[in-house]
Amino acid sequence: MRPTIVIVGAGFGGLRAARALRKAPVDVVLLDRHNYHLFQPLLYQVATAGLEPEQIAKPVRAILRRQPNFEFRMVEVTGVDFATRQVATDRGPVPYDFLILALGGETNYFGLESIVRHGFGLKGVVDAVAIRNHVLRCFEQAMLEPDAERRRALLTFVVVGGGPTGVEMAGALSELIRLVLVKDYPRLNIKDVRVLLLEASDRLLAAMPDRLSEAAAETLWRKKHVEVRFGAAVLDFDGARVTLKGGEVIPARTLIWAAGAKAVSLTATLGLTTARQGRVTVTPELQAPGHPEVYVIGDAAYLEHDGTPLPMMAPVAIQMADTAVANIARRLRDEAPLAFRYKDPGSLATIGRNAAVAYLGGVAFKGFAAWVVWLIVHIIQLIGFRNKLFVLMNWAWDYFFYERAARLITKE
Amino acid sequence: MRPTIVIVGAGFGGLRAARALRKAPVDVVLLDRHNYHLFQPLLYQVATAGLEPEQIAKPVRAILRRQPNFEFRMVEVTGVDFATRQVATDRGPVPYDFLILALGGETNYFGLESIVRHGFGLKGVVDAVAIRNHVLRCFEQAMLEPDAERRRALLTFVVVGGGPTGVEMAGALSELIRLVLVKDYPRLNIKDVRVLLLEASDRLLAAMPDRLSEAAAETLWRKKHVEVRFGAAVLDFDGARVTLKGGEVIPARTLIWAAGAKAVSLTATLGLTTARQGRVTVTPELQAPGHPEVYVIGDAAYLEHDGTPLPMMAPVAIQMADTAVANIARRLRDEAPLAFRYKDPGSLATIGRNAAVAYLGGVAFKGFAAWVVWLIVHIIQLIGFRNKLFVLMNWAWDYFFYERAARLITKE
Repeated sequence: MRPTIVIVGAGFGGLRAARALRKAPVDVVLLDRHNYHLFQPLLYQVATAGLEPEQIAKPVRAILRRQPNFEFRMVEVTGVDFATRQVATDRGPVPYDFLILALGGETNYFGLESIVRHGFGLKGVVDAVAIRNHVLRCFEQAMLEPDAERRRALLTFVVVGGGPTGVEMAGALSELIRLVLVKDYPRLNIKDVRVLLLEASDRLLAAMPDRLSEAAAETLWRKKHVEVRFGAAVLDFDGARVTLKGGEVIPARTLIWAAGAKAVSLTATLGLTTARQGRVTVTPELQAPGHPEVYVIGDAAYLEHDGTPLPMMAPVAIQMADTAVANIARRLRDEAPLAFRYKDPGSLATIGRNAAVAYLGGVAFKGFAAWVVWLIVHIIQLIGFRNKLFVLMNWAWDYFFYERAARLITKE
Repeated sequence: MRPTIVIVGAGFGGLRAARALRKAPVDVVLLDRHNYHLFQPLLYQVATAGLEPEQIAKPVRAILRRQPNFEFRMVEVTGVDFATRQVATDRGPVPYDFLILALGGETNYFGLESIVRHGFGLKGVVDAVAIRNHVLRCFEQAMLEPDAERRRALLTFVVVGGGPTGVEMAGALSELIRLVLVKDYPRLNIKDVRVLLLEASDRLLAAMPDRLSEAAAETLWRKKHVEVRFGAAVLDFDGARVTLKGGEVIPARTLIWAAGAKAVSLTATLGLTTARQGRVTVTPELQAPGHPEVYVIGDAAYLEHDGTPLPMMAPVAIQMADTAVANIARRLRDEAPLAFRYKDPGSLATIGRNAAVAYLGGVAFKGFAAWVVWLIVHIIQLIGFRNKLFVLMNWAWDYFFYERAARLITKE
């Protein structure tokens, strides 16, 4: 009997693992509650009407169509029975010989219930389309609002969190408004519009060298008209007013929360030991302690590297997938598993047209050069030639014509 | 004071009227509850994962951005006070000197409540995306369904109504399944899949000559594997079983209702005299009787032409818009309004790749030639060069690679 390897999650890690097993003498079963793989790094562009969801997502079945040892099941995973080696799902149990848990992350609201209720996260297609609908609706409502104060609140957009997602979201939102929407709303007074980026610490992009963090803040502030505020911790948002620690209140109808991530809530229910952000503490070989046939990778796994926890980012998930697959292969040959070694590919964040910061191979650079690198890297990583082509065409069009194609309010 | 012309509805008629007034010495206010104009003739392609909503819809503000006398308001119209000349909306009244009611149509379920509840209409973006999600979800569920009978019901798709929408929907759905999804689902037994097109009368495409109707049925049946049934009137659908007049029951989890249209329900509440399908009886000059400053056009207007009611189709709406605008201009010059004359541009329906039927200028043709004409006509009519380009690229890709890009299940 060929061993069955069940992979939970079709994100960067799970998909990579499934592909890496294509020539292995095993059966691969991939489970996900969505039927598509999502290229999350470009999700903020869906939220700002630049891209359509279909352009950054691709059905899992289409991606792995030609892999004969592969099977996909769209199910909701509800637990794992490690004793009988079965994944529990809403459509019955799925038995495994090896299990790769690539469960992924979700927005971490740090217990702020009011923000869960009134704010927007940015983790999935539904989130992104909800933000797009809401932002455009705010503009439509502002046009009809006679009261100046309420109009300004409709046109105040608060992004919380100075990591890459928050920086990219704030920059893209400001460009959507200042390059595109101003043309749609000739009666709009641009002075009524505010985009704020709130960061609790004293710098943006903590993974980057200081001078790039400063460059990012400077560019956001001077070129993109984003009000960057440091030491600004959000305590509450009731849908109309953002309350900061210290008591300051910002009237705003939109709050986008990009201030934290954690492992998906399912992770905590599996009975495995979890560490910070609800991530499962794994052995250096990426196994769940006590369950050598279970691998945990990506956002769901907690592992320290040179004394600091590995970040919840795609490169970590992808590299971990390779190690997990290699270790399963070694195990099938009765060899001892190898410890995971992370090779940091560096980091990139775009702020808007012609503006990005990059820290690659220890080299820091910014501006147009970083922006071109960002663009190339993202096009290369997008899955499927069709998606690459359509995204590139969209970007080219938007770049030259100052447009955004997806400015539709599609929710009833 | 320049007169204010309020147009209700941003469909084919309303948009055409707004554009036709661009050089007139008037202020134009266009009201719609959506912020976009939708190219409805291609909506079935969104429902069958071929196109993305953004490619057949364009924001009204973007379309009419350069028209200085134009203003758009996204509001829900709730009524009209003809005495004080005000349109009532959820955001307060909008006064007018002339009113053009281009309210459009909606699905006519003929009082069949069970179909409203369990079936799908195909009038808006939300409908189309709902069908796409549902059809793809049926395939995912069928893969997990051990019971053969229930699996077959999941894979039985019933389209009701043999007009252009039903014919195009059934053909496109069958092609989606037989050309694309079979590759995604290698374990699928294609014999389990049924696409039915139910028509209550004894022919498809009633507006076409007999031999084209026959050719369409023949092509659907022989080439596209659609089971075309005549004399099949649907009485009930409970989400699992379709019941026909006569008692026959078809187990199916999907019913798409393309069997009728009527004026939107708002039309009936305006206090104007309505005729068949809830449409407002208008004078030959397209005015509401007793209200010479109110024009009713498109699906909302009932007018007979050579003894038969004008159909609820885009060409009628567009031509009526031109007449309404011309009559307003004449009125401003104190000239008598002119009667509407409809020029029938003919009709077209596509059945799938390389297959369509066309009846243009009294000439009937079919097959590849008709399909090419259909393609050209639709690309030309799509609004905006970007949409034309992206739709054409999508079609080319799908044609050569037997693909559909938008196979995502995006509803949680």
